[in-house]
Amino acid sequence: MMDKYASAGKVAYAMGRGGTENSAECLMAAKLKTAVLGATGYSGLELARLLVRHPHTDAPLLLRRGADTNEAAPQSPPTSGNGNGNGKFPVKASIQPFSWSALEQHGVELLFLATPHAFSREVVPEAIARGLRIVDLSGAWRLKQEQHRAIYGFKDASPQTAAELTERAVYGLPELNADRIPSAALVANPGCFATSVILALAPLLSAGIVDCDRGIISDSKSGVSGAGKEPTARTHFVSVADNFSAYSVFGHRHTGEILEQLRLNSCQLIFTPHLLPIPRGILSTIYVYLKEAMTADEVQNCFHDFYKGKKWVRIFPASSLPEIQFSVHTNYCDLGFCLAHDGRRLIVVSCLDNLLKGAAGQAVQNMNLMYGWDEAEGLQ
Amino acid sequence: MMDKYASAGKVAYAMGRGGTENSAECLMAAKLKTAVLGATGYSGLELARLLVRHPHTDAPLLLRRGADTNEAAPQSPPTSGNGNGNGKFPVKASIQPFSWSALEQHGVELLFLATPHAFSREVVPEAIARGLRIVDLSGAWRLKQEQHRAIYGFKDASPQTAAELTERAVYGLPELNADRIPSAALVANPGCFATSVILALAPLLSAGIVDCDRGIISDSKSGVSGAGKEPTARTHFVSVADNFSAYSVFGHRHTGEILEQLRLNSCQLIFTPHLLPIPRGILSTIYVYLKEAMTADEVQNCFHDFYKGKKWVRIFPASSLPEIQFSVHTNYCDLGFCLAHDGRRLIVVSCLDNLLKGAAGQAVQNMNLMYGWDEAEGLQ
Amino acid sequence: MMDKYASAGKVAYAMGRGGTENSAECLMAAKLKTAVLGATGYSGLELARLLVRHPHTDAPLLLRRGADTNEAAPQSPPTSGNGNGNGKFPVKASIQPFSWSALEQHGVELLFLATPHAFSREVVPEAIARGLRIVDLSGAWRLKQEQHRAIYGFKDASPQTAAELTERAVYGLPELNADRIPSAALVANPGCFATSVILALAPLLSAGIVDCDRGIISDSKSGVSGAGKEPTARTHFVSVADNFSAYSVFGHRHTGEILEQLRLNSCQLIFTPHLLPIPRGILSTIYVYLKEAMTADEVQNCFHDFYKGKKWVRIFPASSLPEIQFSVHTNYCDLGFCLAHDGRRLIVVSCLDNLLKGAAGQAVQNMNLMYGWDEAEGLQ
Amino acid sequence: MMDKYASAGKVAYAMGRGGTENSAECLMAAKLKTAVLGATGYSGLELARLLVRHPHTDAPLLLRRGADTNEAAPQSPPTSGNGNGNGKFPVKASIQPFSWSALEQHGVELLFLATPHAFSREVVPEAIARGLRIVDLSGAWRLKQEQHRAIYGFKDASPQTAAELTERAVYGLPELNADRIPSAALVANPGCFATSVILALAPLLSAGIVDCDRGIISDSKSGVSGAGKEPTARTHFVSVADNFSAYSVFGHRHTGEILEQLRLNSCQLIFTPHLLPIPRGILSTIYVYLKEAMTADEVQNCFHDFYKGKKWVRIFPASSLPEIQFSVHTNYCDLGFCLAHDGRRLIVVSCLDNLLKGAAGQAVQNMNLMYGWDEAEGLQ
Repeated sequence: MMDKYASAGKVAYAMGRGGTENSAECLMAAKLKTAVLGATGYSGLELARLLVRHPHTDAPLLLRRGADTNEAAPQSPPTSGNGNGNGKFPVKASIQPFSWSALEQHGVELLFLATPHAFSREVVPEAIARGLRIVDLSGAWRLKQEQHRAIYGFKDASPQTAAELTERAVYGLPELNADRIPSAALVANPGCFATSVILALAPLLSAGIVDCDRGIISDSKSGVSGAGKEPTARTHFVSVADNFSAYSVFGHRHTGEILEQLRLNSCQLIFTPHLLPIPRGILSTIYVYLKEAMTADEVQNCFHDFYKGKKWVRIFPASSLPEIQFSVHTNYCDLGFCLAHDGRRLIVVSCLDNLLKGAAGQAVQNMNLMYGWDEAEGLQ
Repeated sequence: MMDKYASAGKVAYAMGRGGTENSAECLMAAKLKTAVLGATGYSGLELARLLVRHPHTDAPLLLRRGADTNEAAPQSPPTSGNGNGNGKFPVKASIQPFSWSALEQHGVELLFLATPHAFSREVVPEAIARGLRIVDLSGAWRLKQEQHRAIYGFKDASPQTAAELTERAVYGLPELNADRIPSAALVANPGCFATSVILALAPLLSAGIVDCDRGIISDSKSGVSGAGKEPTARTHFVSVADNFSAYSVFGHRHTGEILEQLRLNSCQLIFTPHLLPIPRGILSTIYVYLKEAMTADEVQNCFHDFYKGKKWVRIFPASSLPEIQFSVHTNYCDLGFCLAHDGRRLIVVSCLDNLLKGAAGQAVQNMNLMYGWDEAEGLQ
Repeated sequence: MMDKYASAGKVAYAMGRGGTENSAECLMAAKLKTAVLGATGYSGLELARLLVRHPHTDAPLLLRRGADTNEAAPQSPPTSGNGNGNGKFPVKASIQPFSWSALEQHGVELLFLATPHAFSREVVPEAIARGLRIVDLSGAWRLKQEQHRAIYGFKDASPQTAAELTERAVYGLPELNADRIPSAALVANPGCFATSVILALAPLLSAGIVDCDRGIISDSKSGVSGAGKEPTARTHFVSVADNFSAYSVFGHRHTGEILEQLRLNSCQLIFTPHLLPIPRGILSTIYVYLKEAMTADEVQNCFHDFYKGKKWVRIFPASSLPEIQFSVHTNYCDLGFCLAHDGRRLIVVSCLDNLLKGAAGQAVQNMNLMYGWDEAEGLQ
Repeated sequence: MMDKYASAGKVAYAMGRGGTENSAECLMAAKLKTAVLGATGYSGLELARLLVRHPHTDAPLLLRRGADTNEAAPQSPPTSGNGNGNGKFPVKASIQPFSWSALEQHGVELLFLATPHAFSREVVPEAIARGLRIVDLSGAWRLKQEQHRAIYGFKDASPQTAAELTERAVYGLPELNADRIPSAALVANPGCFATSVILALAPLLSAGIVDCDRGIISDSKSGVSGAGKEPTARTHFVSVADNFSAYSVFGHRHTGEILEQLRLNSCQLIFTPHLLPIPRGILSTIYVYLKEAMTADEVQNCFHDFYKGKKWVRIFPASSLPEIQFSVHTNYCDLGFCLAHDGRRLIVVSCLDNLLKGAAGQAVQNMNLMYGWDEAEGLQ
């Protein structure tokens, strides 16, 4: 089935571009045309790098909103001459201002949005109308419930279209929604914190073993790239280095995603983000009370069963906990746990790279599902 | 003996501070003679620095256990010549091997122990017998209950003496035990994590407003100096930088102190330490469920009332949280909180410098109480 | 006028310190009235902290230029209530907009400027005319030679007044200009890099042992606070952490100061600044060729002789080099050196805290000289 | 023997890559068998990771010396279960004690040594006698001149064999020795600092434009992984963080390599290493006086001409300098320069990742040359 599906995907996209040829040349030509809008930010740049190396995509069209002036990322040196072996394109040169005609001209089929949520909310309706498929890395389309969306303060030009798209959008957490992502036109890529919390809790909640009413707490810590590339007093090196702080307590935007995906009410979960003095990586320490006493083996099996066959979740042996360094620069979400002697108090530790499994890597994983490719393609 | 000794000390220093003698020489002579055993570690060195500048103490006698070979701390440059304006002594030169005769020769009255707990447990009985007063920065004498002491695995030469001293030892948290510290012969200086958690919770528990059975969680994070100066794979720069991890989950030694001081049972508290990639500082994020809904003002008053007149605890306005940078290099414990809309879920954030309020600064604060001086003396 | 003013100041403060009055009230009244304009930046805040604790000054009047909106520094927690033992004032509350009437109203005698150089250049003429003494931490008045000033692009309202003040301004490096600072009305506090380089080279150049024409190189590295508090792409945590880079190569503003103070021409010195991923501290590695072979003892004596009696320069033994940690949070400039086997190639390493000896500490040192106090007052 | 062996290897792999066999099984079987001895250190582990992903090698046999007890690297989480998508092997499990029989049993053809130099010096003679090809990452075989080797204090069992091997060993800097590496039996992989300095200077010295007698200075800075994985007081997080220091001044082991490869005498070069508070990366700031004034274009052409067709050196445009972040996690050596207005004083900045282009990446690059593969294979 996999082969058939993959072939179908290839054919479909070869057709999408128009070709019927079957020579290797054609297969080369058959690569997916993508664009990254917002390629100047941390997630957008990371995504561009992944797409450049992806075996089934052409070099992505890199776009910026008009307002973005810092076109080059810190890791994109202004190289010249004969030494650049980076591959498909020199990253810096290619970031163009966004326009629909640019997308058309390049024959873009899949559009990645690494833009602020307000911009995504504005641009997606037309993009969908123009027949593009979309993976949106912003929070614009993640939430089904109005109560959770309120915090974003969306102002939709056409509320009805927005409502319809909100309904159609698929929350792009592949480990949970692998059945709905392949056919989705609009994939809402999850928030980085949300990914770390949902993946840690989904197996336990799905098994019905958590005493939700006693309260679940996620004490989460993120590196600074999660706060975006905008220079602010808060992201100044001197403010962050040798420091650590909590923020958005009882009010972080990712809370709604977590509640919706885990079907919890707002009294059942406390989610507290903190800022770590490191560039990237998230660790969530999650406190859960079980309904009945369990053994470590039973808890471990719960995780293993849930993530059977899932490539991008690693389960650690009982009492062995992941650290941020283990998953940074990979697309893995690492999960480990400790169970108290009473068998009822459980601590789950969840780690991931906020720019990969928490953003760009997950976006590629979603693309892989959308086009019938292996989930790990381009992410090793 | 303890009381007599303490009284004598008080008198001598009362004379030094406010007595009738008027020659400068006399005032000089009246300064307290102290020693720091274990002056090669982070806490011991920090303590030495504080004592050098303390107006009521002579330059401390600095001692090391025989095994300590790294006599100089990284911050003690091997200076020479005319430029050293550091004050009473050049730190590096003066660290001598420990002996009872050295203590006698220098007329030491107050002995600070910044040594491993096993060593403290061994040396204290004789020190007390010799009439010394002691502030012990290790965990050797902090715990009254055998169940909490077990984790340390003490092997006492004279179990009876050890039991008596355990009983007499005063837990040196000045904000809680200011009445018992002045007359104590043996002060057990609290653990750094324990200080941050106890000071955050004591006002709430004392007011009886916490639903303890629902569970209290302290998710605590510490800088690396808290792990000691011993070079290990875990404290290697490459292991710590760009990383973050939990450790000693459900099994950290400071848990017992917190439970005893707050009169909680082991099912009512989860304490989870984490390692931050910073040299110093602790932040504890503490989750509490209140028995009944309260207002932020009521919670704030609870803290203010409890710490009225206490110089080294700072209460932040509601919803304004301390960060590690605020209290590092000071003796303050900073406390802030956020209350959920339901008025029942409360997050307290507690910050301090693990080497000052969490160790050496608190030791000086205890000394100030023991000798009747202002609690802030030498700590500004 | 300058001399008279200075004398008056000296007398007043001599009385305050050792005069014939004996009431405590009088002693209090005699303290120097100061103001810090630009108290929102890193140097200004550090200066405010030093002045608060200085025994001979009142709490400084803290001022900001109209444009400054971030009034509170990261280390100034928004405390309230009874816990604040910080001393003379709560730092945050007291930063007011600048006005001449505010200065008059508070009877300010000494004005510290921690403002951008253009602003200092504008405000100093009137301040001097109003009889204020000034310590300016900016680069506005450090340079005598037009060729070195050009890089700043000063636009003076009254070029003649500016020229006169430029002439009268004393370069406030106490170890070199201790004879002229006491009577100065306008002290130009040196740049942080310049201080580290000049103090390292002055003894060698003064002794005439350096082959200047062979070229002197200072490869200097600074922590990020040296780049100021303004959030920029360059000071974003993610740009700085795990990174290191050179900047302003062959074109840094401090070069002129170094050349003027050391009487070198621009071909004799290369000064290359680099940005370190640390909050504070400077280390300069300085390469010098000696005219004739020397012994390490001779070089060491050269340093010792030059800095005899100077409290804030520490000379390390030969082949023992300072590190940034040794001097950070102190007012010391640490100097060490290594001499090659040939006795002619010499490397001098110079370390200091860019916010203390490189800015605010040196400003206080200058104030101490201006008012006849001990050079170390308020800096221990 | 060396040539024959090399040719045989080339043929075998040419067949594997482009030969006449057409079954996938055969292609698999043709992969090169390698071993990494010292796979517990930073370089060894990095090398293991590269080899696992290399298209022309089998999973390497990972070996440790008997003394190595810390078998797992910090980045090797103790994963289990179904989530591990890392590829060819679980890194942790496979590190075995070294023995000749293990090498034989696995049919190892190419042996990588990531061991201390004394061990390499001891083991290489037998390895060569057994017909193995070797890439040695230690300093054991880099130096031809006795005067430079002295600092290592080698004690050779058979001085004659050692002398012969020293003569036959090829210094494995592919950009300089691409003609000799393909046929080498013993490749001495360059030091990390040496690579950064030699690649920066070789084009200029080769062009004969440098005034060597005026003195060349390389002020070099390295991240902490360059100091090795052994926990020491010097690599303790608290010693390194917020710090910066010079070390091994006028006496670092890499000096000899640089002098030999660049044919300089010891009076013509000063090389000063410093320790940066970052995990990985090297930046060398190199000061050169040109014999005659040149234009920036001429200098740039000098670099471009020298590195024409070289994939792993990137030349920056004039006055645009590399930063450590640009090359970390890549195999690039980045080179940039600034020329003073006089056209004679030149600063070259050279950056690379000490574990990749400075160690493991370069080792793979050497292997690629040794077996006739594309120089970039397995390094993208």
